[in-house]
Amino acid sequence: MKDGDPQPLVLRQDQGHVARLILNSPNNYNALSTAMIDALSDALDEIAADDGVRVLVLAARGKAFCAGHDLREIQGARNDADDGRAAYERLFSHCSALMQKLPALPQPVIAEVQGIATAAGCQLVASCDMAVAAEGVRFGVNGVNIGLFCSTPMVALSRAIPPRAAFELLVTGEFIDAARARELGLVNRVIPPETLEAETMALAATIAGKLPAAVRMGKRAFHAQARMGLADAYASTGAVICENLMRPDTAEGIQAFLEKRPPDWD
Amino acid sequence: MKDGDPQPLVLRQDQGHVARLILNSPNNYNALSTAMIDALSDALDEIAADDGVRVLVLAARGKAFCAGHDLREIQGARNDADDGRAAYERLFSHCSALMQKLPALPQPVIAEVQGIATAAGCQLVASCDMAVAAEGVRFGVNGVNIGLFCSTPMVALSRAIPPRAAFELLVTGEFIDAARARELGLVNRVIPPETLEAETMALAATIAGKLPAAVRMGKRAFHAQARMGLADAYASTGAVICENLMRPDTAEGIQAFLEKRPPDWD
Amino acid sequence: MKDGDPQPLVLRQDQGHVARLILNSPNNYNALSTAMIDALSDALDEIAADDGVRVLVLAARGKAFCAGHDLREIQGARNDADDGRAAYERLFSHCSALMQKLPALPQPVIAEVQGIATAAGCQLVASCDMAVAAEGVRFGVNGVNIGLFCSTPMVALSRAIPPRAAFELLVTGEFIDAARARELGLVNRVIPPETLEAETMALAATIAGKLPAAVRMGKRAFHAQARMGLADAYASTGAVICENLMRPDTAEGIQAFLEKRPPDWD
Repeated sequence: MKDGDPQPLVLRQDQGHVARLILNSPNNYNALSTAMIDALSDALDEIAADDGVRVLVLAARGKAFCAGHDLREIQGARNDADDGRAAYERLFSHCSALMQKLPALPQPVIAEVQGIATAAGCQLVASCDMAVAAEGVRFGVNGVNIGLFCSTPMVALSRAIPPRAAFELLVTGEFIDAARARELGLVNRVIPPETLEAETMALAATIAGKLPAAVRMGKRAFHAQARMGLADAYASTGAVICENLMRPDTAEGIQAFLEKRPPDWD
Repeated sequence: MKDGDPQPLVLRQDQGHVARLILNSPNNYNALSTAMIDALSDALDEIAADDGVRVLVLAARGKAFCAGHDLREIQGARNDADDGRAAYERLFSHCSALMQKLPALPQPVIAEVQGIATAAGCQLVASCDMAVAAEGVRFGVNGVNIGLFCSTPMVALSRAIPPRAAFELLVTGEFIDAARARELGLVNRVIPPETLEAETMALAATIAGKLPAAVRMGKRAFHAQARMGLADAYASTGAVICENLMRPDTAEGIQAFLEKRPPDWD
Repeated sequence: MKDGDPQPLVLRQDQGHVARLILNSPNNYNALSTAMIDALSDALDEIAADDGVRVLVLAARGKAFCAGHDLREIQGARNDADDGRAAYERLFSHCSALMQKLPALPQPVIAEVQGIATAAGCQLVASCDMAVAAEGVRFGVNGVNIGLFCSTPMVALSRAIPPRAAFELLVTGEFIDAARARELGLVNRVIPPETLEAETMALAATIAGKLPAAVRMGKRAFHAQARMGLADAYASTGAVICENLMRPDTAEGIQAFLEKRPPDWD
């Protein structure tokens, strides 16, 4: 990481009910240094506790979205008495906790991918609930090229795309572009670079226009039921939809629909 | 639901060994009212017990395939002493039981989707083993638009299509057409509206032409092994294929193949 | 199986660090007879123990890649005192063990599919980590056509492609070509027949050029975490990536990258 950057590592710029976090270490390709992981974790904790935020967009400044771990920092830890083992365990424990905060966040999270996303940077994209990418942007889990297999990134990646495509990316270290990433299911929408931010924010605004409590219940239920058997998944989501129905604002939403008028939710 | 419809809510019109159930409440967009859920459940129970049925096609009359739950009925329950809670729990318990009857049915089930399928209507499509859709037909899990997240529909949907595409549909309430639904894996075949019924029935007849016992064993095994680890899945299906091989009609099927003649299965 | 073939059932032809196994019973469409299953299992055991092998390519001679089980052998067992039951249990136990050896092999395995792959032959392709197929090659799990549902092949197939597409193939017995197999995720790359071997070997060489220990750790971790919940998967892969980082050759790989020079791994 370059020194002397006076700016915070993560910027927050909200627009209405949409929080916008921006990775702000472009000289370092927004690498997931310990400091960046901590800054991003703190920002997520704040947003999780913020009832006014309905959607989170995770964006980045510079040419890269995120280039993965900070390799200089990793090499530096080799001088520790234990050759870095404790530092590495701490680093990956923190990083994995960060990645799991994204599906656990009460609000939906959209990655806005303006530049290359590699290794743990690709994991970061895959850990968001959805992703919008600029045309031509490339994705890779290319740690294998330097002898460090992307074992933790593959947790998120292999739950987002078909297994044999994930395997190929992991063992070859090759890149795919945004269009292929959409075919595989990593990316939801591919947008010209000029309008990437506007389109992503419009998507976020669409979601922010829904009943926030319903979206929150739904996101939580989505991840909770994902790996259950059918009977458990229905028991779990059945309870959720009944709670959803008992809400007065949901009663109003349904009634408004039947009366062909907009709901009075504000 | 409109009153005074003298017709049954579900019609059954078999052709040979193919049972054909038709949702028959077009004025109500074939909504899954309590009465419709009960009628469909009863019809499925009958078919499950009918050894002459080899394949089920689930079709619908009118402009919609199925528009989900009956919102007037749901709003009506709010007048109950408990504001509807018991009614909602009963409704979703019955509906989830209905949805689980489709993979549990001994025979393969094909949805024939001639019109829009929304919310629990989309769930109904995703709960069938396969789906054939008319060109241009639209699909959505759009409950979020009225403040009721499609938590139960997502159980079936998120097991049919990639997770990030499912999430997008659920939180945006947006629709996809049949072609996109096929790309995502919700729909198996997209057919011009004029020939939808003929093509679906031809697909059903193809399956009905196979050895019924083998198809039944196979369908049961398919769903049973779906979420197992590899070793358990092989133990489970290994027992099934050995039982399959011990059948005299399978012996005849293999022998006929080796002798380049049609099997004598009738 | 034709008699009198003086050649071994499985040939091994290594090129550098890439092992190449070739199914060599073309007159029998490389059927998975008991002898073929044993020969292939033995060859895999040898490769698993061979530290010099970094990648395995599984290829085949003749018009078919593999046509599944040996039906004449299966029919022959019906003359046993128990009508074949013990023989079938042994056969499928051995075959399922063979299929599970492929993901369990320390090295990545690429199927090089030069000809049709049906039933357990399709399972063999789906059990390899990746597959490269010649244009126009066809795939099917068509046992249902002779009354023998492909219950064991579906274990591998339904973990490689979307569930509703898998179901359709299983109950209809219909075939798909290589291009469709790639869309569905069964096949990674589709190549003109003339260059299939060269392209597959080039892909294998790419993988063989990575740090072998990292690839081995990664492949094992990939399959181990596949069906875990998120927290368990991160605990499991976090331990793996820390071990990976502690390796001196990984330290060298990272250092070389930072110094913009090739790693000294030899």
